[in-house]
Amino acid sequence: MPELRKDPIIGRWVIISTERGKRPSDFGITMEKKGSKLCPFCPGNESATPPEIIAFRPDNTKPNTPGWALRVISNKFPALKIEGDLNRVGIGIFDKMNGIGAHEVIIETPDHFKDFADFDNEKALNIIWAYRMRILDLKKDPRFKYIIVFKNHGQAAGASLEHSHSQLIATPIVPKRVAEELEGALKYYQYKERCIFCDIIRQEMGDGERVVSRNDNFIALEPFAPRLPFETWILPTKHYSALEDIAEKELPDLASILRETLKRLSLSLNNPPYNFILHSRPVEEEGKIYYHWHIEIMPKLTKVAGFEWGTGFYINPTTPEDAAKYLREIKLDVVENNVVQQQTH
Amino acid sequence: MPELRKDPIIGRWVIISTERGKRPSDFGITMEKKGSKLCPFCPGNESATPPEIIAFRPDNTKPNTPGWALRVISNKFPALKIEGDLNRVGIGIFDKMNGIGAHEVIIETPDHFKDFADFDNEKALNIIWAYRMRILDLKKDPRFKYIIVFKNHGQAAGASLEHSHSQLIATPIVPKRVAEELEGALKYYQYKERCIFCDIIRQEMGDGERVVSRNDNFIALEPFAPRLPFETWILPTKHYSALEDIAEKELPDLASILRETLKRLSLSLNNPPYNFILHSRPVEEEGKIYYHWHIEIMPKLTKVAGFEWGTGFYINPTTPEDAAKYLREIKLDVVENNVVQQQTH
Repeated sequence: MPELRKDPIIGRWVIISTERGKRPSDFGITMEKKGSKLCPFCPGNESATPPEIIAFRPDNTKPNTPGWALRVISNKFPALKIEGDLNRVGIGIFDKMNGIGAHEVIIETPDHFKDFADFDNEKALNIIWAYRMRILDLKKDPRFKYIIVFKNHGQAAGASLEHSHSQLIATPIVPKRVAEELEGALKYYQYKERCIFCDIIRQEMGDGERVVSRNDNFIALEPFAPRLPFETWILPTKHYSALEDIAEKELPDLASILRETLKRLSLSLNNPPYNFILHSRPVEEEGKIYYHWHIEIMPKLTKVAGFEWGTGFYINPTTPEDAAKYLREIKLDVVENNVVQQQTH
Repeated sequence: MPELRKDPIIGRWVIISTERGKRPSDFGITMEKKGSKLCPFCPGNESATPPEIIAFRPDNTKPNTPGWALRVISNKFPALKIEGDLNRVGIGIFDKMNGIGAHEVIIETPDHFKDFADFDNEKALNIIWAYRMRILDLKKDPRFKYIIVFKNHGQAAGASLEHSHSQLIATPIVPKRVAEELEGALKYYQYKERCIFCDIIRQEMGDGERVVSRNDNFIALEPFAPRLPFETWILPTKHYSALEDIAEKELPDLASILRETLKRLSLSLNNPPYNFILHSRPVEEEGKIYYHWHIEIMPKLTKVAGFEWGTGFYINPTTPEDAAKYLREIKLDVVENNVVQQQTH
């Protein structure tokens, strides 16, 4: 059973999950490009994964057989486990609890050799739908306080399988980093009676120098104080605190701007490793007025070194203004009709 | 001039330092093993670096010529610059200031092919002395609020030159991660009237299962809630809030336990990339009673992925108890007289 342990000084929880792991001699094994024959996420190998939770597949195909367009499965090596109780325990000065949670994998495509940046808008929309369905289902479990969806692309970004997939983890606590973001947004709201993200979007739309692109319902921009070069955020231009709150008719705009932004990054930076991370309010409605959900895309072009580990203070060699200009000016193969290109001012 | 920018939601400052950097096409260039001929840190190439601030060298040698045992220089591509004023500016909702600070490099050895884990105790002591001298000097500059010393070993840990060196950065603000640690320690002190680190050391000495080694004045241990496999902390067993506060006669014990711990990690994990980071109180005496300085060593065996970026919640596949046992039981080539081996209970 994985275990949650709390750092008593910082108050940061960590997951000790030895089933995923590792004696000293196991480190340093690198992911091999396996091609599709041995890949557990490829059609024909469905029995190599836990059974599917949901799948998008024609009516005439059976669960856990080929023919699907998208599958959601439990992670075979989950960081947190779905069965059991929290069982909070103190050990002298220290605190721990059982590693209860959900850890799912969204297999985005049957095609081993396509990445998110290569998908069409319909494919991207399917993936967003799958996120939303799983979030709505997991929110019913009262043990879960927070649900995060994220994608690791490329080995340097932590992907251990190359077949395009994203992941979802439901946690029994609101993680520290999330609580900080909520707290920062709350402070601003208490002072101004306005959502800080709405204010940022308004200011960024003004001179547009950090804007990458826009459509009717979403904006892609480089944040004013990016930790990493080409860090890019996608935000709904209307105030919503959670992905699952947005209107269904707004979902295609999300799918197209996410896909298109990943394409811009891929073309600009030669298919860089990256993470994207859904930032959403906790399951309980905390933050509904003052928090604004969004996606943060973090290309992994530089290494996080001692200074960053020690201080939380990032050294970034690229200004967000330069990065935005570069991403804006990239020629996409096809400019989709439903994406309005942002003009440089 | 580098620029400090503040994320308005989290309150995290970042350093935008374009002189270090990078158009999109520059990313993905990897460090080459250059050998000593082209290395700016090797003897004979002193003119390739900024002039030395201090050096340990025989009296009959001239500054910036060969013969030295250790050199401290300004970083040729500093993240922060020593000249100028802070010049705080608001831009609408955003805040920035000039990137004022000091960024120095401690070239630990003239030998291109030796790493910290290979040094003898005398060499390690020289390095600690250099840290201390530079800290005491930079503390006189009232613009600096925090001084961090750190080492990046190996490319995956962010080292851009292979010749063994550490770095020192003085910052005009107390970084967020440091402030959090101070705040956590203060809360505990307010509740218990005791230093939390002193309490941790007392508890860890009890059953010893997370202790790696001890000597008269220091302890090396795996923290209860480690973010990364084999994360190891070195703490003074007496309460001091800053490295420069400890008695001179305690310095050799620090040098030997640091060197020995790095040797244990190197032997256990086949010379892994790592960062070590000095955690010390701010320049002003804030935290003197409740904060306890220490060194955190972070081997880089796993990748920080989307989940960790999004939540600050780390998934660690190795228990600290297993890691401590492994490190304790490693056979060192020579067991130094002044290091008492910790017994397993």
